[in-house]
Amino acid sequence: MRTLYNQIANQNRERLAALSDGVFAVAMTLLVLDLRLPALEAIHSEHELAHGLLMLGPKLLMYFMSFLTLGIFWNGQQTQLNQFERVDRDLSWIHLAFLATITLMPFSTQFLAEFIAYRMALLVYWLNIFLPGALLFISWSYALRHDLVREDTRDGVRSAICRRVVIAQSLYAGGALLCFIGTRWSIAAILLVQLNYALAPQLPWIKEKRSVR
Amino acid sequence: MRTLYNQIANQNRERLAALSDGVFAVAMTLLVLDLRLPALEAIHSEHELAHGLLMLGPKLLMYFMSFLTLGIFWNGQQTQLNQFERVDRDLSWIHLAFLATITLMPFSTQFLAEFIAYRMALLVYWLNIFLPGALLFISWSYALRHDLVREDTRDGVRSAICRRVVIAQSLYAGGALLCFIGTRWSIAAILLVQLNYALAPQLPWIKEKRSVR
Amino acid sequence: MRTLYNQIANQNRERLAALSDGVFAVAMTLLVLDLRLPALEAIHSEHELAHGLLMLGPKLLMYFMSFLTLGIFWNGQQTQLNQFERVDRDLSWIHLAFLATITLMPFSTQFLAEFIAYRMALLVYWLNIFLPGALLFISWSYALRHDLVREDTRDGVRSAICRRVVIAQSLYAGGALLCFIGTRWSIAAILLVQLNYALAPQLPWIKEKRSVR
Amino acid sequence: MRTLYNQIANQNRERLAALSDGVFAVAMTLLVLDLRLPALEAIHSEHELAHGLLMLGPKLLMYFMSFLTLGIFWNGQQTQLNQFERVDRDLSWIHLAFLATITLMPFSTQFLAEFIAYRMALLVYWLNIFLPGALLFISWSYALRHDLVREDTRDGVRSAICRRVVIAQSLYAGGALLCFIGTRWSIAAILLVQLNYALAPQLPWIKEKRSVR
Repeated sequence: MRTLYNQIANQNRERLAALSDGVFAVAMTLLVLDLRLPALEAIHSEHELAHGLLMLGPKLLMYFMSFLTLGIFWNGQQTQLNQFERVDRDLSWIHLAFLATITLMPFSTQFLAEFIAYRMALLVYWLNIFLPGALLFISWSYALRHDLVREDTRDGVRSAICRRVVIAQSLYAGGALLCFIGTRWSIAAILLVQLNYALAPQLPWIKEKRSVR
Repeated sequence: MRTLYNQIANQNRERLAALSDGVFAVAMTLLVLDLRLPALEAIHSEHELAHGLLMLGPKLLMYFMSFLTLGIFWNGQQTQLNQFERVDRDLSWIHLAFLATITLMPFSTQFLAEFIAYRMALLVYWLNIFLPGALLFISWSYALRHDLVREDTRDGVRSAICRRVVIAQSLYAGGALLCFIGTRWSIAAILLVQLNYALAPQLPWIKEKRSVR
Repeated sequence: MRTLYNQIANQNRERLAALSDGVFAVAMTLLVLDLRLPALEAIHSEHELAHGLLMLGPKLLMYFMSFLTLGIFWNGQQTQLNQFERVDRDLSWIHLAFLATITLMPFSTQFLAEFIAYRMALLVYWLNIFLPGALLFISWSYALRHDLVREDTRDGVRSAICRRVVIAQSLYAGGALLCFIGTRWSIAAILLVQLNYALAPQLPWIKEKRSVR
Repeated sequence: MRTLYNQIANQNRERLAALSDGVFAVAMTLLVLDLRLPALEAIHSEHELAHGLLMLGPKLLMYFMSFLTLGIFWNGQQTQLNQFERVDRDLSWIHLAFLATITLMPFSTQFLAEFIAYRMALLVYWLNIFLPGALLFISWSYALRHDLVREDTRDGVRSAICRRVVIAQSLYAGGALLCFIGTRWSIAAILLVQLNYALAPQLPWIKEKRSVR
């Protein structure tokens, strides 16, 4: 009886994971649609084509930043899904809300790339980092409260996942605040925080975080 | 022999689930393509950009409503797939028809967002809620009649799934009828029904439904 | 040792199935992008909007026909994948070629919808039905020849899968030939053949086919 | 304890595989979006439509070449994932970087198809073959160094995978260099190398490679 129940519950988790992988895969690939070709008529030499490519630089940087964002959240969600014993109805809707914010990422990226000098665009982009982070936090708290986390998950891991989200989001918020000095400072700061989480250089003070992911 | 048979049948179910997750993931992400940026030339200040974003409000609301619709149907189909012992050829085509209506959702959403004041647009959108619901109803009846549902599925669950579809669709139809007063009333009513199913507030009279999902 | 080998071989099959489901899911959803909204400026009344929707009729029919095509080929490929004991390198490339023809389906559909009166458009569309069919035939012959089919697959099934492809493709070719009378006759004939395979009415002479799918 | 750990690690591998299959499926299908229809107004006869189709020839060739590239890399990544005992955090990011280069393939293809006479476009395309190859090389070296490869993977396979990448990339680089004679020579050379890997004619000197894939 218990086994059967787990089996059904597990299927929910598997299908939620499959839907999530699909949404991330499509969002990652759609980001590229914003990289538009230089106009054929405007190009008459290798030199002009090279220049046209260079002009794509900022959009390519935005693409790279958004791909990093998606990669970080994919990893973060995956870590949680792996730790779940099962997924109930409410937790499933929390993750659907999380996926809704993920599908908005190509829009925010395009928005920031187009209006890169505007604080408003930067804040919209930051919101698109804040919301999935907040939803992952809510997801983990909910799972802990409703006993949906595997029994073999150590206490250290349980608290570390929450702490990790709070620290990361504080750094992103700090970076976003820099937009009152200049949006480019914000972008640089957010990118640095992202690279720190993606590359995770082997410094002693982030050892613990590594063990969580 | 029997085991082998189940294994093959199960693979059909697994692949149908995988195809469905893929279709839902793409449809959810394509919804966003309708959120178009304000024209760069029209924006000269933070204030104008904020105004441009506000103008996206109705489209964002449509996006949100359609994402809810897709989430509800994804949950509904998943519940059924989990209860199936196996999937035969006809059941597989019923679900392909269901997926066809799901792929039309980005179109209906765009249609309603563009012609939000027209009853015709509202009725097309409602049709796109009615058809997948009807197909899920047909799917469940077919599975019950052809003995494709797991033996361990309780009788309460068997009837509750049908009842749930009928009640939900009656509420949607009622909401759609409000369009003869005004399409905005219809949208508000449909949205309320959806939020009810997604958030499922803890009222005693919907306890049973919760246990089904 | 043998077990391990099977496990690795099985993974190949699983990942080929996952890639295929993804390609079909995206192709099915992209078909809808060809359904374009009527221009907002041209619509001034419910009546004009209804008329605008009616004008989408032929495109909607094309969409429906292509979805049927994709559904039929998805079922056909799935049947084969389920019967494979394992998938070797060459078989994997045969299925990649098959998937390439599937990704072309949104293009052929759009092409036929735009140039519906031209024989050339009909022949291109037919080619896009013929090629995946031919590749499924090659795939099955290859698998039989290289002993990649499950040992428990009955001889009846082995020959029926080949026969089925040949009969279906003959019917499609016959339908396509009707384009020399008129392309609309071709479309009607192809649609009838497809509906026959999708709905598979319970006539005695197609019983055997049903047992294969 | 050990079993549980493997189970979690395995899930990581499964989800990385699922994300990869999704990205490849979307990228393969998006390639087709570059095949644009001839303008309806410009076509007045079957003959003009046939001519319009012929004009799509170069784009169709590019599509075919990019599909081959994606198929080759999908196979290459799959081979590695199957050999991994588990996937750790860093290896997962190496593969995310690999997937980022895969999502760029529709852009590079479009770029080369539009600017086919320019060396710069050829070099960008070659870079999009070189980068995923380099990342697969880094992935395999990392996995070997960090003991993430299955114990039952024979030494021959271990070295062959690295050698294979190096040989293939040398051939591609050689082909790309031909662009200083003419970009069409480069395209022909790259296509030949790809066909060699996809079709893998049964010559004795490539027997070993075949056993690896």
